[in-house]
Amino acid sequence: MQMPAHISQEFELELENIRAKVLTMGGLVEQHLAKATDALQQRRLELADEVSADDFKVNTLEVNIDEECTQILARRQPAAGDLRLVLAVIKIIRDLERVGDETAKISRMVLRLIENESPKAYYINVLAMANHVRRILRDALDAFARSDANAALHIAREDPSVDREYDAIMRQLVTYMMEDPRSIGTVLNVVWVVRALERIGDHVNNICESIIYQVKGMDVRHADLDEIASNIHNE
Amino acid sequence: MQMPAHISQEFELELENIRAKVLTMGGLVEQHLAKATDALQQRRLELADEVSADDFKVNTLEVNIDEECTQILARRQPAAGDLRLVLAVIKIIRDLERVGDETAKISRMVLRLIENESPKAYYINVLAMANHVRRILRDALDAFARSDANAALHIAREDPSVDREYDAIMRQLVTYMMEDPRSIGTVLNVVWVVRALERIGDHVNNICESIIYQVKGMDVRHADLDEIASNIHNE
Repeated sequence: MQMPAHISQEFELELENIRAKVLTMGGLVEQHLAKATDALQQRRLELADEVSADDFKVNTLEVNIDEECTQILARRQPAAGDLRLVLAVIKIIRDLERVGDETAKISRMVLRLIENESPKAYYINVLAMANHVRRILRDALDAFARSDANAALHIAREDPSVDREYDAIMRQLVTYMMEDPRSIGTVLNVVWVVRALERIGDHVNNICESIIYQVKGMDVRHADLDEIASNIHNE
Repeated sequence: MQMPAHISQEFELELENIRAKVLTMGGLVEQHLAKATDALQQRRLELADEVSADDFKVNTLEVNIDEECTQILARRQPAAGDLRLVLAVIKIIRDLERVGDETAKISRMVLRLIENESPKAYYINVLAMANHVRRILRDALDAFARSDANAALHIAREDPSVDREYDAIMRQLVTYMMEDPRSIGTVLNVVWVVRALERIGDHVNNICESIIYQVKGMDVRHADLDEIASNIHNE
């Protein structure tokens, strides 16, 4: 079934509009993560407060984009690549929404850390991990904007390095707790931040898998990354 | 566009088949969670090993059901309630897959707890929380099987009680760590179990929201539960 030209143009516009909204949502989430990190680094309570207060905007965008995707499925009955784009977007916005949730949790922990005047030594390495996670989130959004499956694959392969950072920081935090049991309450706040960052890394990974699915039509979840790489390059 | 009767019957069968597979997947995840809990309660290493070894079955089912949903969207172009069912299933299986992931994590922590011969006092309350979470997971799957939005709403309202259990147990665990800093490593394994159970509670909540969306056509995420209840009952 061929669509008449003006309908097909309208449809193209709708898809473009959805892609743009995903990038808006992603940009907002990225900005929140940057604010939460800066709040900790610069001990600025007001930045962490802003993230908590604005989390609802992320949620609203998700519900809104999800609704538009459902409308497109119902009215346009897209096929092949267009269908994959809509389904990938439904998954990506869910991951972005959860990145938003984790970021809001981080900002609550940051508030406590600032209020308790926690020593910087407790979280100095966490800032490096946060910058790393911010970078892969931004790169994943870029890969989505450019429908770049190779870039997405490259980012997904970086996830193990986030896991290694996580392990190293966690060991250090346990040492702090053992050396000074009175610090346990405070250090646990840092533990929750690290845990949330690790989760964000997982969600970025999911987003990359959705991009590869959208572009290449391969479901790469639970698959071996080296095998996927050779499939992508041998096409 | 009306479908011919035999096509429409085939389509009905496909939808039934997908519902059945979701229940199979849910049953498997439920069984894994039961095994992981029993492993801890009865100190049976082999049960925890089974969960780790079988997690791939959950992942395979998800990829499989997701692919069938995509096929249905492409070939049948479902509308209204059928479209909502397919979209709800795509979301539900993703949550179930993550419940499976969290359960696999729990089983790894359980292995460590058994191997270190950790005192039962550390995790006795965790077992009660695990039973609670198992119950709401089973109830949510029942609600899906019966397309029962009221039951789903009822379960979603229970989530705050899981959160309260989480807070109480966490406070207790911090006390153990402070009283005996040498226990920190072991107690942290319990902390990860509790954290995973809390996540499973969140996913059960998401599943309930997807059921309400499927049955009632309302997107209830981020909405006030009392308001939703009055909407459902005033219809």
